[in-house]
Amino acid sequence: MYIIGIYDVNKKRVGKIKKLFDRYMFWTQNSVFEGKLTKVQLRELRNKLDGIIDPEEDQVIFYQLGNQKWLNKTILGKQVDDDPPNFI
Amino acid sequence: MYIIGIYDVNKKRVGKIKKLFDRYMFWTQNSVFEGKLTKVQLRELRNKLDGIIDPEEDQVIFYQLGNQKWLNKTILGKQVDDDPPNFI
Repeated sequence: MYIIGIYDVNKKRVGKIKKLFDRYMFWTQNSVFEGKLTKVQLRELRNKLDGIIDPEEDQVIFYQLGNQKWLNKTILGKQVDDDPPNFI
Repeated sequence: MYIIGIYDVNKKRVGKIKKLFDRYMFWTQNSVFEGKLTKVQLRELRNKLDGIIDPEEDQVIFYQLGNQKWLNKTILGKQVDDDPPNFI
C-alpha cells in the first residue's frame, strides 16, 4: 500500500511523532510523510502513535492507496528538498 | 478527480493561500485541504496559487486521484472538526 501520513499535534509531541514517522516513511513536507507500507507495518506505526498522541488534542490522518500508480503528485514552488530540514 | 492539497508557505502568505483553498476545497487539517475538482478548476486554482506563492520559499503539493473510492482515509485522535478553526 502507498500511504500519505499527515499530522497536527501539540508542539510538545511533534519531535517524538516526527522521529517515529521517520522510521517508517519519508519526509515530504512539514508534518507530511509518504511511503510504501505493508498492513503489518501500518498497524505497528498506528499502535505506536496511539501510545504517543493525546486524542483530545492531536490528529493523525492516513490516506491509504492500494497502488501508488493511482496517485498523481504535482508540486508548485520549492521542489522536494534533497535533505529535508532536521528541525522539527 | 479527488484532490488532496497540502502547503508549507511563509507566514506572510498563509492567510491568502488558505482563503483561496477555502473557495475550491474543504479544510481537513492545518495546511491540508481535500475535495473534488474538475481539471479546469484545478488548473484555475494552480494558476491563482502561482500568482501568490514565492517559488523559492513556498511549496504546494497536489495529490490527484482519478477516483475517491481508491482512497482509504483513517483518522487517529481528534476526529474531524465540525467547524474548522478560523485561525490561519
